[in-house]
Amino acid sequence: MSRIVYVNGDYLPEGEAKISIFDRGFLMADGVYEVTTVIDGKLIDFDGHFLRLERSLGELGIENPMARDEWLDVHRQLVAQNDVGHGMVYLQVTRGAPGDRDFIFPDPETTKPTVVLFSQANPALIDSPKAKKGIKVITIDDIRWGRRDIKTVQLLYPSMGKMMALKAGCDDAWMVQDGEVTEGTSNNAYIIKGGRIITRALSNDILHGITRAAVLRFARESQMPVEERSFTVEEAMQADEAFVTSASTFVMPVVEIDGAKLGAGTPGPLATRLREIYIEESRKTAI
Amino acid sequence: MSRIVYVNGDYLPEGEAKISIFDRGFLMADGVYEVTTVIDGKLIDFDGHFLRLERSLGELGIENPMARDEWLDVHRQLVAQNDVGHGMVYLQVTRGAPGDRDFIFPDPETTKPTVVLFSQANPALIDSPKAKKGIKVITIDDIRWGRRDIKTVQLLYPSMGKMMALKAGCDDAWMVQDGEVTEGTSNNAYIIKGGRIITRALSNDILHGITRAAVLRFARESQMPVEERSFTVEEAMQADEAFVTSASTFVMPVVEIDGAKLGAGTPGPLATRLREIYIEESRKTAI
Repeated sequence: MSRIVYVNGDYLPEGEAKISIFDRGFLMADGVYEVTTVIDGKLIDFDGHFLRLERSLGELGIENPMARDEWLDVHRQLVAQNDVGHGMVYLQVTRGAPGDRDFIFPDPETTKPTVVLFSQANPALIDSPKAKKGIKVITIDDIRWGRRDIKTVQLLYPSMGKMMALKAGCDDAWMVQDGEVTEGTSNNAYIIKGGRIITRALSNDILHGITRAAVLRFARESQMPVEERSFTVEEAMQADEAFVTSASTFVMPVVEIDGAKLGAGTPGPLATRLREIYIEESRKTAI
Repeated sequence: MSRIVYVNGDYLPEGEAKISIFDRGFLMADGVYEVTTVIDGKLIDFDGHFLRLERSLGELGIENPMARDEWLDVHRQLVAQNDVGHGMVYLQVTRGAPGDRDFIFPDPETTKPTVVLFSQANPALIDSPKAKKGIKVITIDDIRWGRRDIKTVQLLYPSMGKMMALKAGCDDAWMVQDGEVTEGTSNNAYIIKGGRIITRALSNDILHGITRAAVLRFARESQMPVEERSFTVEEAMQADEAFVTSASTFVMPVVEIDGAKLGAGTPGPLATRLREIYIEESRKTAI
């Protein structure tokens, strides 16, 4: 069965889902996105993603084309029509297709934002083989633009970073700026030392992860001390544990950094526990 | 008459020109572009643009989907079918539409690059009112990614910079990194002091402008000394003249930087002369 996707008000078979070549998302990366996880057919942290979408759009001066409940309805329609058990819903909003290419923004009265959503099924989402083994990361220079807090589709370098990691026989790359880790290619980065969870503080340098916020809240509620500060690659290589968080990987243990094994080279107890708590708590509040 | 554009082998009316929502150009800004100017129906510096396209694609590991003569044929077809006198041909190549979203590059055996080209007519290209008056620029922080030598479609920040300039009552923005000017939003930046033309040297920090190369060659042939080195905003504000170059604006005089008038606040003699030489010489070698 062909997947049903959403494009500007229409539900279409994926093969028919197209946008204009003049769309500013295609010509100029002038768009933002969100990925919301689906567990048991329910949306995890939908409102967190909705609020971040509003913030990203606001930073770029793009009007949010739909109200919260309309977004929710499209998400639910896609989950239902595609019978998604575990997986995710991807959404993208661009400044629209003005009919020609220009660096100057089009008039928002005549050019409306483009809205695209599609689902991705992932039956192994929760019982992820990778989570049981942990992932290996390399470090690479962070040469992305300076506003990584806006969730834009300028994902070329993160995608290149992922490929560099695979080429090195690893799973992902941590990006490094001035000697300090910013984040992974599509996730926030953490280390644990002496029972303390350490992760870079929020700024324009990193994405304000929805999963990050939830995980830090659950950690604090579980009496795990959290330090929001930068850390170096050297400090990371000497940590007891490490992990990354994202909507689609939850809490994913990191067992090796630039070839250096962390502890026994297997997922650490705190990261493993945080993953369990996150999944358990998220299921409770899924809608 | 509807414009005829080119999409993956087909010549189509612009309203029917669409790409998949799964195109990596749309989802991840994973694509590169070129803009070739048309004067009197002929292409300026076609081979310069073709070679830079090859370089950009090579840096991203995307195979060039067409040979030089095929590219030339599509350019000429679009000029002819749309009866373009003065204007430009835009081309974009992305890593293609793999049918789903993934940070991992798709297999190039099964996912072929997307190729899009369209023309834009601009009858006032040569007798540009702006060139007679000169343009005013503001300066803004250069927060783009670190590989500006690859001509990717990650143009969100340059587009935002252009809007900041318009909001400030100016025409364009010069981007500044560590106190020194890198380039304009869609052009290379130059100042002239004591008869010497000063422009930032090539590196990963700036686009390797095709028009830049031609203009510097013509300047040297005309015995105008050229210094390829960085300059500060302060030095620029005290210059005798300034200008920018790009395929679509040739040599465009800059008469004001952050509110400071250069000289008499009108296009300077050397910039004006370079514009004339560039247009004259380009016409001779157009194909």
